[in-house]
Amino acid sequence: MIKIKILSVGKTREKWLEEACEEYIKRLTATVRFEFLWAKDTPQLIEWAKKESNHICLDPAGTLMDSIQLSHFLSQSWEERGSKISFIIGGAEGLPKEIKQNATLISLSPLTFTHQITRLILIEQIYRATEIAKGTGYHK
Amino acid sequence: MIKIKILSVGKTREKWLEEACEEYIKRLTATVRFEFLWAKDTPQLIEWAKKESNHICLDPAGTLMDSIQLSHFLSQSWEERGSKISFIIGGAEGLPKEIKQNATLISLSPLTFTHQITRLILIEQIYRATEIAKGTGYHK
Repeated sequence: MIKIKILSVGKTREKWLEEACEEYIKRLTATVRFEFLWAKDTPQLIEWAKKESNHICLDPAGTLMDSIQLSHFLSQSWEERGSKISFIIGGAEGLPKEIKQNATLISLSPLTFTHQITRLILIEQIYRATEIAKGTGYHK
Repeated sequence: MIKIKILSVGKTREKWLEEACEEYIKRLTATVRFEFLWAKDTPQLIEWAKKESNHICLDPAGTLMDSIQLSHFLSQSWEERGSKISFIIGGAEGLPKEIKQNATLISLSPLTFTHQITRLILIEQIYRATEIAKGTGYHK
């Protein structure tokens, strides 16, 4: 079982996007367990990030990948760094350097998304990555 | 009033993503009127695209932009090419050359998204573009 923790700031959790995320979380029930942590502010996010030994930052300065590269990147992370993985989602200005140092930075797009849409894209890409790894027709 | 037509192939219209899109469509009621056309297959999409004189293709080979560049790009399109604009969403392999020739190609990300998520991202970016143009605090 892969354990994915997603850390972010803010409380906006629109119902309509929650449901979209839920769909992929449900599809991944057998393979991935998600945990969502919402910090009340950046200092709290920094505190939480300190406790993470194996975190990936979503940041505008991060590496852009296509879905196949992201699938390989995730498979490799699980093989080399263990099945517990944390993603930290930054805002429009990216994450503070206290969080980014010693972390792997990736970017989903040069565009700025809301936290909720970022979360949906990330979860759908994790689902897509597992389907790519399995070789199903989902990603074609 | 800006008129935006979004052409795509396929019928998958998940309720949970429809609601997410509706939220931004509602916020844009006063400025943008959306029209969605779903072709049953690629030949029909090619037929429809032929009738468009002013279309932008979402394609993996398109130009990547950040949200501010996209806002400028859209403002410029509306000023120079009129307030009617069409977006054509391609699949994972991109759009056929019959549609892409003479069109402007843009890309939302190197990642592959579902049609529905692409539509949500596009609509949210159009909303974000209008907020950037107005100088509100939505995009910061």
